[in-house]
Amino acid sequence: MKSLNVGMIGGGFMAKAHSLAISGGVNMFFDDGIVLNRKMIAEVNEEMAKDAARRFGYEKYTTNWRTLVEDPDIDIVDIVTPNNLHMEMAIAAANAGKHIICEKPLGRNSNETKKILAAVEKANVKNLVAFNYRKTPAVALAKKFIDEGSIGKILNFRGTYLQDWSADPESPLSWRFKKDVAGSGALGGDIGTHVIDFAHFLVGKIDEVMSMSKTWIKDRPIQTGGLDTLGNKSAENTERGVVDVDDEISTLLRFKNGAVGSIEATRNAWGRNNFLTFEIHGEKGSLYFNYERRDELQVFFAEDGDDRRGFKTVYTGTPHPYGEGLWPIPAIGIGYSEVKIIEMHDFLQAIIQDKECEPNFNEGHKIAQVSDAIIESSKNKNG
Amino acid sequence: MKSLNVGMIGGGFMAKAHSLAISGGVNMFFDDGIVLNRKMIAEVNEEMAKDAARRFGYEKYTTNWRTLVEDPDIDIVDIVTPNNLHMEMAIAAANAGKHIICEKPLGRNSNETKKILAAVEKANVKNLVAFNYRKTPAVALAKKFIDEGSIGKILNFRGTYLQDWSADPESPLSWRFKKDVAGSGALGGDIGTHVIDFAHFLVGKIDEVMSMSKTWIKDRPIQTGGLDTLGNKSAENTERGVVDVDDEISTLLRFKNGAVGSIEATRNAWGRNNFLTFEIHGEKGSLYFNYERRDELQVFFAEDGDDRRGFKTVYTGTPHPYGEGLWPIPAIGIGYSEVKIIEMHDFLQAIIQDKECEPNFNEGHKIAQVSDAIIESSKNKNG
Amino acid sequence: MKSLNVGMIGGGFMAKAHSLAISGGVNMFFDDGIVLNRKMIAEVNEEMAKDAARRFGYEKYTTNWRTLVEDPDIDIVDIVTPNNLHMEMAIAAANAGKHIICEKPLGRNSNETKKILAAVEKANVKNLVAFNYRKTPAVALAKKFIDEGSIGKILNFRGTYLQDWSADPESPLSWRFKKDVAGSGALGGDIGTHVIDFAHFLVGKIDEVMSMSKTWIKDRPIQTGGLDTLGNKSAENTERGVVDVDDEISTLLRFKNGAVGSIEATRNAWGRNNFLTFEIHGEKGSLYFNYERRDELQVFFAEDGDDRRGFKTVYTGTPHPYGEGLWPIPAIGIGYSEVKIIEMHDFLQAIIQDKECEPNFNEGHKIAQVSDAIIESSKNKNG
Amino acid sequence: MKSLNVGMIGGGFMAKAHSLAISGGVNMFFDDGIVLNRKMIAEVNEEMAKDAARRFGYEKYTTNWRTLVEDPDIDIVDIVTPNNLHMEMAIAAANAGKHIICEKPLGRNSNETKKILAAVEKANVKNLVAFNYRKTPAVALAKKFIDEGSIGKILNFRGTYLQDWSADPESPLSWRFKKDVAGSGALGGDIGTHVIDFAHFLVGKIDEVMSMSKTWIKDRPIQTGGLDTLGNKSAENTERGVVDVDDEISTLLRFKNGAVGSIEATRNAWGRNNFLTFEIHGEKGSLYFNYERRDELQVFFAEDGDDRRGFKTVYTGTPHPYGEGLWPIPAIGIGYSEVKIIEMHDFLQAIIQDKECEPNFNEGHKIAQVSDAIIESSKNKNG
Repeated sequence: MKSLNVGMIGGGFMAKAHSLAISGGVNMFFDDGIVLNRKMIAEVNEEMAKDAARRFGYEKYTTNWRTLVEDPDIDIVDIVTPNNLHMEMAIAAANAGKHIICEKPLGRNSNETKKILAAVEKANVKNLVAFNYRKTPAVALAKKFIDEGSIGKILNFRGTYLQDWSADPESPLSWRFKKDVAGSGALGGDIGTHVIDFAHFLVGKIDEVMSMSKTWIKDRPIQTGGLDTLGNKSAENTERGVVDVDDEISTLLRFKNGAVGSIEATRNAWGRNNFLTFEIHGEKGSLYFNYERRDELQVFFAEDGDDRRGFKTVYTGTPHPYGEGLWPIPAIGIGYSEVKIIEMHDFLQAIIQDKECEPNFNEGHKIAQVSDAIIESSKNKNG
Repeated sequence: MKSLNVGMIGGGFMAKAHSLAISGGVNMFFDDGIVLNRKMIAEVNEEMAKDAARRFGYEKYTTNWRTLVEDPDIDIVDIVTPNNLHMEMAIAAANAGKHIICEKPLGRNSNETKKILAAVEKANVKNLVAFNYRKTPAVALAKKFIDEGSIGKILNFRGTYLQDWSADPESPLSWRFKKDVAGSGALGGDIGTHVIDFAHFLVGKIDEVMSMSKTWIKDRPIQTGGLDTLGNKSAENTERGVVDVDDEISTLLRFKNGAVGSIEATRNAWGRNNFLTFEIHGEKGSLYFNYERRDELQVFFAEDGDDRRGFKTVYTGTPHPYGEGLWPIPAIGIGYSEVKIIEMHDFLQAIIQDKECEPNFNEGHKIAQVSDAIIESSKNKNG
Repeated sequence: MKSLNVGMIGGGFMAKAHSLAISGGVNMFFDDGIVLNRKMIAEVNEEMAKDAARRFGYEKYTTNWRTLVEDPDIDIVDIVTPNNLHMEMAIAAANAGKHIICEKPLGRNSNETKKILAAVEKANVKNLVAFNYRKTPAVALAKKFIDEGSIGKILNFRGTYLQDWSADPESPLSWRFKKDVAGSGALGGDIGTHVIDFAHFLVGKIDEVMSMSKTWIKDRPIQTGGLDTLGNKSAENTERGVVDVDDEISTLLRFKNGAVGSIEATRNAWGRNNFLTFEIHGEKGSLYFNYERRDELQVFFAEDGDDRRGFKTVYTGTPHPYGEGLWPIPAIGIGYSEVKIIEMHDFLQAIIQDKECEPNFNEGHKIAQVSDAIIESSKNKNG
Repeated sequence: MKSLNVGMIGGGFMAKAHSLAISGGVNMFFDDGIVLNRKMIAEVNEEMAKDAARRFGYEKYTTNWRTLVEDPDIDIVDIVTPNNLHMEMAIAAANAGKHIICEKPLGRNSNETKKILAAVEKANVKNLVAFNYRKTPAVALAKKFIDEGSIGKILNFRGTYLQDWSADPESPLSWRFKKDVAGSGALGGDIGTHVIDFAHFLVGKIDEVMSMSKTWIKDRPIQTGGLDTLGNKSAENTERGVVDVDDEISTLLRFKNGAVGSIEATRNAWGRNNFLTFEIHGEKGSLYFNYERRDELQVFFAEDGDDRRGFKTVYTGTPHPYGEGLWPIPAIGIGYSEVKIIEMHDFLQAIIQDKECEPNFNEGHKIAQVSDAIIESSKNKNG
């Protein structure tokens, strides 16, 4: 069985998710026929790097990501760092001829993503940007229904990503609230890009945006050292740092194919945890998805008949996308682990079949362009 | 017991809803101490007027609404006609010194509502515009929680009104699709105004809008005679008439108090029936309501504690607004009848206590102004 | 138009519900062509009777129900009193040749219902026992799907009726907790009979039961005078009376047609308000209904296809049972008013068409027999 | 870091789930400080064993499970075979001094489980029976609320396990339908035992049962070779084999502490996939869980106040049981992988802290005793 060596840059919770998929998940679930070795992991200091290697099972560790990128033993570079580091790392990895998985968003803005894209295209390496939520079987099923014409021509798309882990003004100042690290706020620098990805994946190219944004919480307690902490826990630190990105953004959309839509992303939505949703109306039916109940796709088909039409809750299982590799009956459970395993499986298939990853860096770049446009549109409208 | 005579103009399904409330509902539920007599009903021809009187229990009928308005026996005029007739009727009723209930929207646009408002203010009669959905106990409970500060300062509002009764291109050309009758489309002329009413009622004055609209179905089978028919039933008629208003409209909002928001109204949302919703996030909690499940308000209070926070489904009953007059335990059932009974009760209380109705024509006028602004903003953006 | 005079015995919240249907609801909704006059109402004392007449719009009142029953002007007697009075009243009404509507349960036990049944059969009057919940359009739709064979042969039935209005030990001692008035407890004397009615209506005759019951709260504060109060409100009275019926009962069922099932009824289910549900599995599909969301029927059809099967939420409207008389689009709202209006409509249709009411007293008697069997089965098992 | 060697007996989908947890999941999530090596896997023939080793990453394989059990390098034996093999394997493993994880149910009946229990008690090895669903964070949270007294004294428990993977009579004859392999049917031999486990875990000892059972589908197409197949897929084989166990069973329960309850387990519930639920009512509140929406626990606390009480949807995350090891915010996703990782973590903690596993074989034996009693009670009542 062929084997490939992976180098992971970053040791936070995303490293956990990716490493589980690498450590065994893929073959156990999909039998791609490639063994992935956890070869090396990089973190910012000795202690963190060593600990990450131990926790996530990497043979070696380094505090210098360039060492990892340039190691001839490494076949795949997996980048799970804050956004501001993606460009330099991804370009270096491409130049070193490595296949690349990069966490979303691909860069802080489309200037960065353009350069990253150029590098991988020049190097001709496989490249996947980790918009993992489209890998959820229920989302893949939505795509299948659309492609089959089951809901007809798409009229509109409404996407939301609502969270509350930072709704408390005493929650820590994550790097996600710093423009120099994140690039932008709720939408461009973080969660909103997943919704743009859904819009592109399911509906198509976005032509026009009209946006508003807000920064509700203007400073937060500074975090002290270590890995970035998400969450509502009030920090003990009394020193506060400035939030210089938005924490809520809304936009109207016009798609190239005529459909209209909207996106809303906020981190101040008390009670919403990972409320990543879309609702799509077509000429012949509708679709609704909420990642908080990710085993399910809601579908409505007009043709079902006057007296028996209604939104149907389809639990994804073996008859649905990726079903052959997952659990034998629906609702045994799709979790984040399963979603990330599917993502890695698709990445390996791109290598095996020598085809483009979905979504690749080209897609990541287009999403950054939309994100830039939304932020530009909301300028001077941020209260 | 005091008694008042009601004259109803219009004999469609709204006449049914209002007449049930009048015929007994109010005293049975709230004991307002006023007996309402169903005195006279007006429809466009003898047959329809006579039948409406029989069905809805009116003593007399007329084919001339002016006869009704000018009858000295009539105390209250209730207008349930298409939008284009509201102005003339309401002004005549005001001039005749009658208290007025008028179905929403108050007029086809703010030019009309301004004149209507002037008339009732001059006549000093009670005036209520029938944005009945805010009378739903769960919506009134949302208002109470907001007023009590239970969710803190409001950050945003997201309202939708999604329907599918006309999603089929073969569904009949209701007057709701004709600009000269309805005034405007999905938003201004019909369902969207309920969402603006929610926004005003729950959040406050709207300062700025940015909108997009679409007319997806550009012609429909012409209806032949009689009352307007809603519904997905394909018309038999093969002659088609032009739809000259939008059937989908979306807007971003900025409120005077700093909150932001959005409204989406569409008649092409397969699977959504009367999907009138709002979600409101505040600094200390959140609220969600969906009229399709109108016995329930979803509430989230941040203060509930880290390990036991979550959206709570509150079924409205005796401890909630209007609860003293409704059913003895929650979930026995709030239907349209109950909502309309509450509306009539509030109207009677305004008469009894000589106070303003909520919402009155001034509010109806402000809603028309917002509606006009949304439509103006969407100009040239209607594909 | 033909008119019939109604005499109502009882003035509590059930009188309200019935009176609204009588006062106009039926013709407004279904145009049955019969005008119902609210002729006379009876309550236990002058003050209550007078007030009930005023509130509910009856021409006359009496403190002697026999006066009402024997009045030659009365065509229909509507009995909405506590259970212990049903037998005497219903028999007297039958003997006087009146058509009868009687609130459920028909009697305190099958000895009583047998006598009531004999009286109406002898008198040959129309008789309806007010198991109103089967009149909910979504329940009628379930019946239609079953009758059409859409879910195939029925395998099982699981019904629940869970409430919490008396879960607080300080809530008042309603007559529903007294054996001499109610006959029995949660099941036989009250809510559980609705579930037995569902089982009979949807599945068929019950052959065998195995039951357990409990009386969790053994005494409660005595109510002082007036109408019976439901609800969680703690009574002010410190004197307590004994609860001598169960407040929770569960049973397994075996139907004559081979299906199996269960019923659970409890008044101690914190958080459940009017949680009257059934789930039915057939060889080809399934049905689920919860009255707390009564506009909806959940349906699953196996034939829908491997990749698009799921429970469908059907909102009842014009294409469904009773739809022609209700609101023009689904989810405008089915409340208790609408359910009771449908019930009265069915009663009038039985008169007009000279056919049996559904459910009639024969059905009410069969339900009492099942109820008796369940209580008998649970004897010595009540902790 | 300490390391332990695992031997896995069985190579089906349960081997996948256990192996993922072993391969990295545990340390990645909980940092238990023990490295688990996938040492050896056993299957029934060379091809299957070799393939399982490759897929799931085991160093060695064998077709003789005794070789595995007796290998001195093996520290932990993990049994994921059909039920009929558990006894022999578990006793052999215990005699060889290995710690043991055994899939549920522990044996085919309590005669078997008694012997297994005796063996592990004599050998003094750690023993865990894989009732994994109680490891779901939301279930663990329910247990915490109960133990803290948040819902007061428990009054009742209603558990269901409804599935439809074999509702189609053409679905294959899994070993789960054969008495000699499974021991018993829907309840004892398979899914129902999870519900008994919930009842024991959350409420306590069961004293009395009253049951009914059915075998709806009396024969099914025989499977040909290889791993057992679940699912609705019609088998191609035309030869049919007899189903000699029930496929639906219901029981009433009486707990030692006075609470009452019911359990229903069926494999014929079209539309229910992995519908493992419980509803618990206590004197002060209620709990509801449905594994199909396993990120959520529904909780109701009476003390929340009259106007703001309702079932609350708590999404489990860092403030809840096991939260410190899982994902940083709720609803990122609990899948089967996460549940099995938690189970393995608890097993390792029992080894590290030298304490009893939960649930251990003693608990597995008690569950078998209840299961036997339920089946006995339903005898002669199986139609």
